[in-house]
Amino acid sequence: MQLTVDLNADVGEGFGRWSLGDDAAVIATVTSANVACGFHAGDPATMATTVRTALEHDVAVGAHVSYRDLAGFGRRYVDATEAELVGDVVYQIGALAGVCRTLGARIGYVKPHGALYNTIADADGRGAVHARAVIEAVGHYDAELPVVGLAGSSFLDHAARAGLEVVPEAFADRAYTPEGALVSRREPGSVLHDAEEVAARMVTLARTGTVTAVDGSTVAVEARSICVHGDSPGAVVMAQAVRAALADAGVGLGSFAAGPRAA
Amino acid sequence: MQLTVDLNADVGEGFGRWSLGDDAAVIATVTSANVACGFHAGDPATMATTVRTALEHDVAVGAHVSYRDLAGFGRRYVDATEAELVGDVVYQIGALAGVCRTLGARIGYVKPHGALYNTIADADGRGAVHARAVIEAVGHYDAELPVVGLAGSSFLDHAARAGLEVVPEAFADRAYTPEGALVSRREPGSVLHDAEEVAARMVTLARTGTVTAVDGSTVAVEARSICVHGDSPGAVVMAQAVRAALADAGVGLGSFAAGPRAA
Amino acid sequence: MQLTVDLNADVGEGFGRWSLGDDAAVIATVTSANVACGFHAGDPATMATTVRTALEHDVAVGAHVSYRDLAGFGRRYVDATEAELVGDVVYQIGALAGVCRTLGARIGYVKPHGALYNTIADADGRGAVHARAVIEAVGHYDAELPVVGLAGSSFLDHAARAGLEVVPEAFADRAYTPEGALVSRREPGSVLHDAEEVAARMVTLARTGTVTAVDGSTVAVEARSICVHGDSPGAVVMAQAVRAALADAGVGLGSFAAGPRAA
Amino acid sequence: MQLTVDLNADVGEGFGRWSLGDDAAVIATVTSANVACGFHAGDPATMATTVRTALEHDVAVGAHVSYRDLAGFGRRYVDATEAELVGDVVYQIGALAGVCRTLGARIGYVKPHGALYNTIADADGRGAVHARAVIEAVGHYDAELPVVGLAGSSFLDHAARAGLEVVPEAFADRAYTPEGALVSRREPGSVLHDAEEVAARMVTLARTGTVTAVDGSTVAVEARSICVHGDSPGAVVMAQAVRAALADAGVGLGSFAAGPRAA
Repeated sequence: MQLTVDLNADVGEGFGRWSLGDDAAVIATVTSANVACGFHAGDPATMATTVRTALEHDVAVGAHVSYRDLAGFGRRYVDATEAELVGDVVYQIGALAGVCRTLGARIGYVKPHGALYNTIADADGRGAVHARAVIEAVGHYDAELPVVGLAGSSFLDHAARAGLEVVPEAFADRAYTPEGALVSRREPGSVLHDAEEVAARMVTLARTGTVTAVDGSTVAVEARSICVHGDSPGAVVMAQAVRAALADAGVGLGSFAAGPRAA
Repeated sequence: MQLTVDLNADVGEGFGRWSLGDDAAVIATVTSANVACGFHAGDPATMATTVRTALEHDVAVGAHVSYRDLAGFGRRYVDATEAELVGDVVYQIGALAGVCRTLGARIGYVKPHGALYNTIADADGRGAVHARAVIEAVGHYDAELPVVGLAGSSFLDHAARAGLEVVPEAFADRAYTPEGALVSRREPGSVLHDAEEVAARMVTLARTGTVTAVDGSTVAVEARSICVHGDSPGAVVMAQAVRAALADAGVGLGSFAAGPRAA
Repeated sequence: MQLTVDLNADVGEGFGRWSLGDDAAVIATVTSANVACGFHAGDPATMATTVRTALEHDVAVGAHVSYRDLAGFGRRYVDATEAELVGDVVYQIGALAGVCRTLGARIGYVKPHGALYNTIADADGRGAVHARAVIEAVGHYDAELPVVGLAGSSFLDHAARAGLEVVPEAFADRAYTPEGALVSRREPGSVLHDAEEVAARMVTLARTGTVTAVDGSTVAVEARSICVHGDSPGAVVMAQAVRAALADAGVGLGSFAAGPRAA
Repeated sequence: MQLTVDLNADVGEGFGRWSLGDDAAVIATVTSANVACGFHAGDPATMATTVRTALEHDVAVGAHVSYRDLAGFGRRYVDATEAELVGDVVYQIGALAGVCRTLGARIGYVKPHGALYNTIADADGRGAVHARAVIEAVGHYDAELPVVGLAGSSFLDHAARAGLEVVPEAFADRAYTPEGALVSRREPGSVLHDAEEVAARMVTLARTGTVTAVDGSTVAVEARSICVHGDSPGAVVMAQAVRAALADAGVGLGSFAAGPRAA
């Protein structure tokens, strides 16, 4: 039995005249593509282009749902009501599903983006209402769709209890606390920049389910997917290094989600 | 065999804090509800409310797709490229389909809105590219979905040739030229205001397939649906008068489209 | 020497096809008009119409600045950075100033709207960054422009310390705690509906600087302006009752701000 | 007396997370900077950054006003009413003026962008209403502000007759017809790619008021400004080549507009 892990990355994050990152290179590297759905990025024509590229590379298509915030790229908390957020998430999933349908593709999973992702990670605290909204939206849309979230977060616990398949993810380029949480971006050393070091860490994670924390201790991170980035040339190089190191180490690469081709 | 006609109206045309018209009264009057999909009106929460009301009244749900133009309510021509417009139409249909799916509903048809509706009516002229985009979008999304358009328009000819089911519609409150076209809104007498007169005209249309043109002549208007309005109290009264007169005349009322309940 | 108070209300809160409230009636009733600047409501043509009405009635024009949130009508907290919010506030003031300039009008003051208003009221707590942003934006734009805020709020303290003229306001239709704060809208009895009662309370406030709190005690509320509403027929009636009662009681009505006519 | 010409370029065309071109390099090369005002690009924080850069380089600031069309980058005709467009143009000028005011800067001119630019160039034909709207907007906002437009276009004639100062511009990288019009982008050879050739043509234009047309003939182009681009590395190189060639030829470089510093 072979060990297999998923690599996911955000793609399709242009909007109209604006592009971001090298989607073709990123999609060729990962096994799951988080496709922006129009609320933080991703006009419909860009969405179609992105889904086509995912189909060419047989990479799973995820709905990367966001707060309605083009000006802030979905990185700003928006105090939406539960009904508003349920509607916004369903709208985005449906819109991407529509684009997929015209191309012979389908959605394989849902991953909240940016501030929404971070807010609902605290589903027992301030993110409770929004976590519930996301879970309700996905559950009512298609209870078979997996949701991707932060490994160890209460969002995943809530989603699992609601009957959804949950996919905890680790971040390739982030430092971890001894408790298995991400070191805050405000702390020095929170983001790792050495592609080889990052690749080696991810091989260890895939093999042992652990990473070395900032204090040197070994901490368990239960992840079924690894998030890599593609919004800069350096990020693409790092993503490729992670993929190559995993392959060299005999770790299989494959998505947890259904493939992009419509059944 | 009974004569049956469809009544359709635009609904769900609020956005966030703003509402427009009395959707509950309108939906109770018609057999097909054109639901705004977010590009000219209709935030996701409003869309959900509107679909719920359609379900309660067993009224067919149509995707009322528009140019991307909230500020102009979709009443302004936007010179989108064909790829942009295909994407925009698919995105809107998909988004409404997503909302429907969470509520046990489904889309029964597509009706272009406002400036898009008017532009593509001239599918042999300046509307050619946009007509093709709409037809491509619907055909690729679901070639079984009927499209509603102006009776006599070249858009319907093109759509039919592309294999789509087409539904020509008449406008209850509009005057017609001797050639069966709408009298331009810039002309005096283009819009009729007397509810009883309008109702009587629609009974004649349903029974004979003709209306009295502005010059007093009788002109054929081949329509499978009658468009009524609901964005003012007077409009609702007129819509109700049309419905009552048709019922009194023994004309059946029913949608050309599949009902709102998911199969 | 006569006692004078200002009445202010939110106006120009339509957007494109959508209208809200009876601006003509409201502007005829108040002495200061808070004009939406496009971020929660108020397209440019609506802004121009609103400023024209204010000019006709010689009512001061305020920039009613908001988070960027058309879908939520500015009622949702948006976690903007300080630089983003400074920019957004300046942009909105400038845009309204531009509209005013073409009409021979000018801006007389700035009043934050909705969630921004509520957030910065807690300028010593979670609203600190956004309060600072608003103060910086107004101060850099025109340090002579008064800012309107919640009577007793720390925002006004900070703004005053920064050298701005501050205008504390009371809400005509809201109940007050014994400490002089607004009773939360989530509490029963927080909003008053009886126009005569409200009018009598405002006469007392103008004469004595106090209102009767929910527990029957008398509490000081230091206000230079009274906020009334106009977004429903009942609200307009209440605003007119407040104005009439103040006039009957010999209280003068006048804005704290410069008049709408360009100097 | 020295011959002097202006170089202008579009800048500040990012939006939120998205950037476009190397504004610092472009602004260091030109004498007039067309700053996006939020309708096709340019969020308020980006506008502030761009104006700051213009101040550092003492480059004139122009309001680059557009149709409301973020998704289409202002490159799509939008069939706005005259009142809507007057409002939109005034709103954008005012917003940029507001940003300038907080930074000790001022607007030196107005240049319509993209589809609006192209539409109004035909001010005697289909662009008549929109040309009138732009002229009315600028005239009512500040009749002293110059407007930049296509050399030889009827827009400039109309604007001049309305009392505005007009600045005809040539495009450095575009081929001209024997009649002095731009060769359509749909034609082969319409866009020139050789930086040295382009630079030499602009020296000739500055010295003689002529360019060599596509058929080899010499044609007069009466231009007070030369538009260069900065949205790609190659474009910046070409702009720098034009500037260097003009300087080498002894042609002075300077804006027709007031400098960026507030008087």
